[in-house]
Amino acid sequence: MDEIEYLKSCVKSIKDFPKSGIVFRDITSVCENPEAFPLICKKMAELYADAGITKVVGSEARGFVFGAPVAALLGCGFVMARKPGKLPREVYSESYELEYGTNVLEMHQDAISSDDRILIVDDLIATGGTVEAQIKLVNRFNATIAGAVFAISLPDLGGVEMLKNRYGVDSRCIMEFPGH
Amino acid sequence: MDEIEYLKSCVKSIKDFPKSGIVFRDITSVCENPEAFPLICKKMAELYADAGITKVVGSEARGFVFGAPVAALLGCGFVMARKPGKLPREVYSESYELEYGTNVLEMHQDAISSDDRILIVDDLIATGGTVEAQIKLVNRFNATIAGAVFAISLPDLGGVEMLKNRYGVDSRCIMEFPGH
Repeated sequence: MDEIEYLKSCVKSIKDFPKSGIVFRDITSVCENPEAFPLICKKMAELYADAGITKVVGSEARGFVFGAPVAALLGCGFVMARKPGKLPREVYSESYELEYGTNVLEMHQDAISSDDRILIVDDLIATGGTVEAQIKLVNRFNATIAGAVFAISLPDLGGVEMLKNRYGVDSRCIMEFPGH
Repeated sequence: MDEIEYLKSCVKSIKDFPKSGIVFRDITSVCENPEAFPLICKKMAELYADAGITKVVGSEARGFVFGAPVAALLGCGFVMARKPGKLPREVYSESYELEYGTNVLEMHQDAISSDDRILIVDDLIATGGTVEAQIKLVNRFNATIAGAVFAISLPDLGGVEMLKNRYGVDSRCIMEFPGH
């Protein structure tokens, strides 16, 4: 079994969660595994080791679990995209669409400079709404988005294509799971 | 300036936040710094590099920002202590006291085994309530708590002594700030 197949074998799949017809891909079972978690963080960092990244952006809360280690391994800063009211200094805000309603992410106004090369990191990409909000936030600083990396991609939900077509952002992932 | 003084100089102090008389120690300014963030993660991991740690425990959400990199650097698993309803499988729950009211943290029932040696990691220790809840959760598994490490300690608030006296848990920190 190669490393990717091994990592996929560590993902627990929960049928009909959070609702009927959905197979929930549970990344927490990868995190809890002492072999799998350091391995997946290393593999995510390696994909952008030569890209001159200066800061990693990750969103609350599971984006922190992969974004912060990737930043530490790349020797970068880590910028949190948080839910409203959680950051103590002046923030920019962007909203994004959910299946029902909208959510908001915030980032400190001095967290990024126009010289920075940004890598967006998240646990999973589905339709890409939270990543889209992070792209809009980074664009407020006129910084360069060098790419995005996800532990899991659900390619049939179109998020990866949306990031490329709408924002010109290339992304990579460690594990792909077809279906919904 | 030595490394600890350098890291302390990166912490932004916000007076009278969240209320009058409090000096809020803002760790996000350390995270956003490309020199400081990898350095503090490395120093936190080094304190327990020889302790045989198998899993790091961190609580939502800022505990993830330090706990996950320390786990990746130590070659450990990372176990999330999350707010109610966020974890997809069966959980244990423990409540902890806040200034007004109580909060609850949850952990997957299969996240830890009795053979594990646990390190609790958080951004800041004040009175120690969230760490206490994590100790109670880990004790449900009869695992060994090898220690706890914090980026910032506010020693005058008594959390470090409480962990030692009530639970026998030794802890270390990178930066101490006296006062409230």
